[in-house]
Amino acid sequence: MEAAEFRRRGKEMVDLIADYLENIEQRPVYPDVEPGYLRSLIPEEAPEEPDTYEDVVKDIERVIMPGVTHWHSPYFYAYFPTANSFPAMLADMLSGAIGCIGFSWAASPACTELETVMMDWLGKMLKLPEDFIAGTHGQGGGVIQGTASEATLVALLAARSRAVRMILASDPQRPETGITSKLVAYSSDQAHCSVERAGMIAGVRMKKIPTEQSDKYAVQGETLRRMIQEDKAAGLIPFYFCATLGTTPSCAFDHITELGHVSGPALYVSKIWMHIDAAYAGSSFICPEFRPLLNGIEFADSFNFNPHKWLLVNFDCSTMWVRKRSDLIGAFKMDPLYLKHDHQESGRYFYTDNSLFRSLKMWFVFRMYGLKGLQDYIRKHVELAKEFESLVRADQRFEISADVVLGLVCFRLKGSNEVNETLLKRINNGRKIHLVPCQLSGQFVLRFAVCARTTESRHIREAWRLITQLAEEVMQELPH
Amino acid sequence: MEAAEFRRRGKEMVDLIADYLENIEQRPVYPDVEPGYLRSLIPEEAPEEPDTYEDVVKDIERVIMPGVTHWHSPYFYAYFPTANSFPAMLADMLSGAIGCIGFSWAASPACTELETVMMDWLGKMLKLPEDFIAGTHGQGGGVIQGTASEATLVALLAARSRAVRMILASDPQRPETGITSKLVAYSSDQAHCSVERAGMIAGVRMKKIPTEQSDKYAVQGETLRRMIQEDKAAGLIPFYFCATLGTTPSCAFDHITELGHVSGPALYVSKIWMHIDAAYAGSSFICPEFRPLLNGIEFADSFNFNPHKWLLVNFDCSTMWVRKRSDLIGAFKMDPLYLKHDHQESGRYFYTDNSLFRSLKMWFVFRMYGLKGLQDYIRKHVELAKEFESLVRADQRFEISADVVLGLVCFRLKGSNEVNETLLKRINNGRKIHLVPCQLSGQFVLRFAVCARTTESRHIREAWRLITQLAEEVMQELPH
Repeated sequence: MEAAEFRRRGKEMVDLIADYLENIEQRPVYPDVEPGYLRSLIPEEAPEEPDTYEDVVKDIERVIMPGVTHWHSPYFYAYFPTANSFPAMLADMLSGAIGCIGFSWAASPACTELETVMMDWLGKMLKLPEDFIAGTHGQGGGVIQGTASEATLVALLAARSRAVRMILASDPQRPETGITSKLVAYSSDQAHCSVERAGMIAGVRMKKIPTEQSDKYAVQGETLRRMIQEDKAAGLIPFYFCATLGTTPSCAFDHITELGHVSGPALYVSKIWMHIDAAYAGSSFICPEFRPLLNGIEFADSFNFNPHKWLLVNFDCSTMWVRKRSDLIGAFKMDPLYLKHDHQESGRYFYTDNSLFRSLKMWFVFRMYGLKGLQDYIRKHVELAKEFESLVRADQRFEISADVVLGLVCFRLKGSNEVNETLLKRINNGRKIHLVPCQLSGQFVLRFAVCARTTESRHIREAWRLITQLAEEVMQELPH
Repeated sequence: MEAAEFRRRGKEMVDLIADYLENIEQRPVYPDVEPGYLRSLIPEEAPEEPDTYEDVVKDIERVIMPGVTHWHSPYFYAYFPTANSFPAMLADMLSGAIGCIGFSWAASPACTELETVMMDWLGKMLKLPEDFIAGTHGQGGGVIQGTASEATLVALLAARSRAVRMILASDPQRPETGITSKLVAYSSDQAHCSVERAGMIAGVRMKKIPTEQSDKYAVQGETLRRMIQEDKAAGLIPFYFCATLGTTPSCAFDHITELGHVSGPALYVSKIWMHIDAAYAGSSFICPEFRPLLNGIEFADSFNFNPHKWLLVNFDCSTMWVRKRSDLIGAFKMDPLYLKHDHQESGRYFYTDNSLFRSLKMWFVFRMYGLKGLQDYIRKHVELAKEFESLVRADQRFEISADVVLGLVCFRLKGSNEVNETLLKRINNGRKIHLVPCQLSGQFVLRFAVCARTTESRHIREAWRLITQLAEEVMQELPH
């Protein structure tokens, strides 16, 4: 296919995409297929000779769509949102065409530079402390990662590197090999599973800090302080704490001001690295009324959230800021000759190894929505969640399982886990709306996350009608 | 922006992209900007109110293009190619619109399933051993990663996990904490810097195996055998070897059959994990005449290459196969309730945590080119490299620095490193063509990689004319 045909096919694809998104709510949100469904629908091998483009396009409806979970349907309430906006899609088209790999400044200066400046723009929208803004002379700054999981790992590795460096500086005789086995990192028992996995990858102990329903599932400073003391007494070296703002199960918020005071002094290494994972909730901090949730950021060494979740920037775009770029660069730097260039030591830039031109979609989205448009979007989702919450609260058979702070409502039928599991199964098998569960204090809880860009009040009310209708059926069938 | 406006803007963007790619060779391939150029061209903060789309589009030429290194210009000969094709771009548009996150089968069955089947298609094109094909009952199979760096790390972590498991199985009394510090991994001194970094991340020793010009920069079985024996004698535990097929500096090929025999038996753990990184060269193995380069794959535990380099599938798409999916799943598995679904134990799928619908672009590209079209594409690039090689060989002032096997020609002026450094600087400052250097046996060498999809013989000849012209200037100025 050459450019001339692309002009035609590309425009057809634009219409196909617009049609798909305009009519998405007519599709069952959750697919009705069994594992292995797709293999039998297509050949076992790639064709020797080209297929026609018409055949490829026909297969989108025949092969792909029956197996798609429609994340952008206004009836999708599972997991957390993933962003999808037209300005981001336009930027991604351009990014694909430019198709540069941004592994160094020279590999495409615009790619590196726009990323740095967009991270400053976004940092300012969040009113991050000056330390995290690169500007022209800052020591900190932002970099785009693929996911929050990646950012957690990158922060953990930088922290490990800094801790080992500091320990060796204070005790040069100490054998380096034994240090890692003494390091200990912490995160909430509510933290995303990727935090635990980061510990596995880095080969360090990762301890879960217990939380309580009575504390709204937030890590308490006192609990962390006690764990740190015990670990130090046992000869371990605390070096990393991953705080969560907006946990996956219930959107709980750790008290980072309190935790910052704990993790600061009193340690073998001069300071514990505090990383803040606000994957979902972070987008809301652009609204003044939600910004207090980020108070305490001044204690953090690194901070991350996903504009690709809730800020209309399509996947992937996970934004990570560090107080000191040198901590990140130092932990990963490699300088083979084939990557050297004349501006190697400009020192003003840092990047991951393999970014596409991901900052383009931040640029398009921020400009086409404006800060106000983005704030409106966040507020609308929170309002919809509040609307759902009041529907639940107005029904005596149900209970709310965790504070509703942003766009997630955790709720359940008063009663056994079994009755709630059955209800959820019934909901998802209906394929009209889609939800996933979580576990809170041993209880099976339903998570209702406002996800799609096009969700309106009528969808929320329709979802609630459906849930109550199925709940009635389930309660009639099961002993309550 | 809503769907109606996207229909218009999307079509304009399709034309903008087609225009850009059709006229790309009229742009200077390498930008003439200084670090920091971009910041002064745009506001310091995001706008409060939306900008107009017209303003955004105007800024593409004003702000972005002056700082772009045009990887798809037929005058781009730096690094290695990065793929760019119209079918892949069309698929990426669709992927962005569907915008599902494939972290589990249930999160979008089509996403997981098409990936598994496309990896089988590609595995069959490469004639991989049956063990690496998932099929309906296989234990192995393929998964898409973001980059070869990521695949190297994933393989290393899976190997570490397997080694620790095996060691504990044979010696249950052994304390687990000490094992990692005894592990030792190996790779060529020609391997990509990301291999060394993978070792840093995983916290294991990574030893470089020396190579010689006389051996064409290939790791020799005997060298690896000796290192393994010495390390074992010193109480270390060899557990991982990363072989490279097509190194970054000179596209050298390790002898994997020979190395497979070495890494197989005679070890503390039953077998060293052999990972093969063929990031660039891998695409060529779809041609029968280049497939022998992959002989020995039957000894490997995992294999990876980047269709996003040389197989017309836009970034990112790095394809990794493992002999045993359970080795990968076991090393990373996490099962929080919010990711559980009814088909959890189907056991037929495995995936990274955060794939987009990347398999769509494999599907579009394989079908729109057909195997023959892809083979033709590879062969054309190799021919162009051979053409460049003959031009170099015909000029007594130059020498070829490494065997030309695929699309990379390493060459230099006979003479000092200084004269070659000056030549390269002169070439890149001209901004007509773009090359990067490498170091081979202490010599500063110029790398000429055939990269763009649209490179033709006339571009090669023009590049050579330019190089010889600048070489003449440089040789007149510098003592030879």
